Amino acid sequence: MIQNDTIIALATPAGVGAIAVIRLSGAAAIRTVNQFFAPVKKGKDLLTQKTHTLHLGHIVQGTKVLDQVLVSIFKNPHSYTGENVVEISCHGSSFIQQEIIQLFLQNGCRMADNGEFTMRAFLNGKMDLSQAEAVADVIASNSAASHQVAIQQMRGGITNELKELRGQLLDFAALIELELDFSGEDVEFADRTKFKELVATISSVLKRLIDSFAFGNAMKNGIPVAIIGEPNVGKSTLLNALLNEEKAIVSDIAGTTRDAIEDEVIIDGVAFRFIDTAGIRETEDVVENIGIQKAYEKAEAAQLIIFLINAEKYLNNAAEFHSEIRSVKERFPNKRLLVLVNKIDRVHTEVLNALTTDREEFILLSAKEKIGIDALQAALTSLVNTGALSNNETIVTNSRHFEALTLALESIESVKNGIELDISSDLFAIDIRECLRHLGNITGEYDVDKDILGHIFGNFCIGK
Amino acid sequence: MIQNDTIIALATPAGVGAIAVIRLSGAAAIRTVNQFFAPVKKGKDLLTQKTHTLHLGHIVQGTKVLDQVLVSIFKNPHSYTGENVVEISCHGSSFIQQEIIQLFLQNGCRMADNGEFTMRAFLNGKMDLSQAEAVADVIASNSAASHQVAIQQMRGGITNELKELRGQLLDFAALIELELDFSGEDVEFADRTKFKELVATISSVLKRLIDSFAFGNAMKNGIPVAIIGEPNVGKSTLLNALLNEEKAIVSDIAGTTRDAIEDEVIIDGVAFRFIDTAGIRETEDVVENIGIQKAYEKAEAAQLIIFLINAEKYLNNAAEFHSEIRSVKERFPNKRLLVLVNKIDRVHTEVLNALTTDREEFILLSAKEKIGIDALQAALTSLVNTGALSNNETIVTNSRHFEALTLALESIESVKNGIELDISSDLFAIDIRECLRHLGNITGEYDVDKDILGHIFGNFCIGK
Repeated sequence: MIQNDTIIALATPAGVGAIAVIRLSGAAAIRTVNQFFAPVKKGKDLLTQKTHTLHLGHIVQGTKVLDQVLVSIFKNPHSYTGENVVEISCHGSSFIQQEIIQLFLQNGCRMADNGEFTMRAFLNGKMDLSQAEAVADVIASNSAASHQVAIQQMRGGITNELKELRGQLLDFAALIELELDFSGEDVEFADRTKFKELVATISSVLKRLIDSFAFGNAMKNGIPVAIIGEPNVGKSTLLNALLNEEKAIVSDIAGTTRDAIEDEVIIDGVAFRFIDTAGIRETEDVVENIGIQKAYEKAEAAQLIIFLINAEKYLNNAAEFHSEIRSVKERFPNKRLLVLVNKIDRVHTEVLNALTTDREEFILLSAKEKIGIDALQAALTSLVNTGALSNNETIVTNSRHFEALTLALESIESVKNGIELDISSDLFAIDIRECLRHLGNITGEYDVDKDILGHIFGNFCIGK
Repeated sequence: MIQNDTIIALATPAGVGAIAVIRLSGAAAIRTVNQFFAPVKKGKDLLTQKTHTLHLGHIVQGTKVLDQVLVSIFKNPHSYTGENVVEISCHGSSFIQQEIIQLFLQNGCRMADNGEFTMRAFLNGKMDLSQAEAVADVIASNSAASHQVAIQQMRGGITNELKELRGQLLDFAALIELELDFSGEDVEFADRTKFKELVATISSVLKRLIDSFAFGNAMKNGIPVAIIGEPNVGKSTLLNALLNEEKAIVSDIAGTTRDAIEDEVIIDGVAFRFIDTAGIRETEDVVENIGIQKAYEKAEAAQLIIFLINAEKYLNNAAEFHSEIRSVKERFPNKRLLVLVNKIDRVHTEVLNALTTDREEFILLSAKEKIGIDALQAALTSLVNTGALSNNETIVTNSRHFEALTLALESIESVKNGIELDISSDLFAIDIRECLRHLGNITGEYDVDKDILGHIFGNFCIGK
């Protein structure tokens, strides 16, 4: 892996803003910028400036002034990447960004790959692999919950959980390998009782972390909620009503979540990803039935199903109303299901009263008039146990970590069984090594495969 | 105008990126950030740090870590605004930006108005008004030409042109006001010969600057080019062909000009704003004729007209072909007109040869096959004299400046006439004062009306 070249990228979002930041990293970063930097204070030389200082001046190309800029200097190893880093804060015009980047590309720099700054930070030992991965999660986080788990991981959450245990396991592994060298003499260097305790602890920590993944994944990606119901029952109106509640909170800053994911709603800090489905109804139409089949499949993949039903149906045919609710419940016996009776603004008070007797079973609402939205929000959040979050527990959100933890657990369970069956240590020595390898993969302590690194950092944005 | 409060805004474009920068300005800026900043180096206090330094740490709210950030400190008066300024470089997630801004809004800061940072820079004497205005132009610039004139103005172009002359005029004004005090004694303190020379110089400089506005405005906003021609003659294909040429250059950085202005094309550093019009043809249809009338109106407003005509028409009816070209020329006798004969890939070589004898008159091209695009680009750029740009002359691009210069010229011309007619100095003293006032308005040397400031900075983006 070549790391001696100097990389450059726009670090701030594309588009027009007050300022934009262009980042360079590499041994020659400061020297390269210095060649094209005309400081306001005459005679200033960037090369002789201290780390963590800011300098006002112009980027000039021959006699042409490209922009007035503020240059930040970070000297190896005191920088994000551990290399020499320069951040150029210029005016937020796409044209200027392009001109400045082009200037440096023509003078020895190379366009950074996705996540290359963070990859260099990892390779230079500024952070472990799980922390590097969390950087992308922090940037992508769009709810209080996803943000909190990402920050926790970036600050070394999973690393700290595993580091100590892995160290102890490593010590035992060394002793057991030693036993193998003296195998003819039938000695036991490793204290079996203590070893059993350690294996049990590791096993229980791994189980807890693995169990946290379902929750962590939901926090990170949003809890998938399928909305099913007949056409025109008010699905879009409901979504808009939920979105409106949130809108007031996010309106201070332009262009956030809503543009990106039309139907994600954050309630009480937790993201719910609403999946709209085709209207479901009894039909003989083959094509329509395919659509309805798809709706059921989507519902199966969701963690939660909302069934919307029209209150007017109760008015017209109470039996059919109840039978429909029953049939949805029967179809999804193992899913958390919320039955919402919509359009209650259109029915008489008596009907409402009759419906209210079944109150436990469903939520009455009028999406249009925004009645009952609070109750729905409360029902949604009550389904999510955010206790782990408030207790600051480590929560696994990364499927690569989940996989490694699962494999590590398998290995440690084999070790456990091996000890219990009192089998020869050379048999479970392999399992110990396997377990150590899987745990090391999470933090990148072993040499990590280049392809894996490419895959991890390929998901980053450029400039990070 | 209250300037003692601390303002905050996102300074980088909204959206997801590697990093985002939040800017605070005001007496309490450093103190406020310090309250919520947990430095990585224990015990560090932002209040005791030097100006122009960078500090790594976390923004914390109680026990909750909002983000790991890099904080830049600028101490009054050594900052953009001239006040204490803090820039917080955080991870580029909309959620985090929002959380951090909300934290400071709840702790004594106020959301900055559009352009309020730059307005404070002006009010604190960090730049004059014309320079402040140029900041917005620099940000909005999207071509080499518009960028160059904006940078020139930001660096004080127009200020430098006028400062010396205005100073000299001010001296003469004082002498002439003195004459008025001694009016009974018929003395002349002001040397009339030197004064006439100065007035002539001011007048010629003002004329040059006023003349530069047509060009400056075109550079800033793009040169409006109307494309007229029958439906299906290939207008969109032509635009796409022109856009494609440019695409290769801008592709390094995502989401630049093309998304914003679909039909702006930058050729050789100059922006051409292509105005698509309804297809023009002879018709009895009333509604269609209204559309055609509008097309003619748009063409009248453009600085340049491109008339696209189908080469196949020549094949079918050469007389009609020539008569159409003639009639367009007659309709726009005072406009720069480019006649483009399109779809030459569809006609035989002999036809092409016949057309080529009229070569001087029009450009032959095939927008589809991208033949003749170079010739069109050359013709477009040859119509723009960029000499003033390469000579680094001051070019007026701001209509407020244009207006003030025009009024100043009117006043100075009155002064000139007054001297020539040898009228009493009390009569032209008023005109001198008027001229000084108009010139002072450009750089904001007099107290500028609050409404005018509001108007100027209201066009800025928030965060600048």
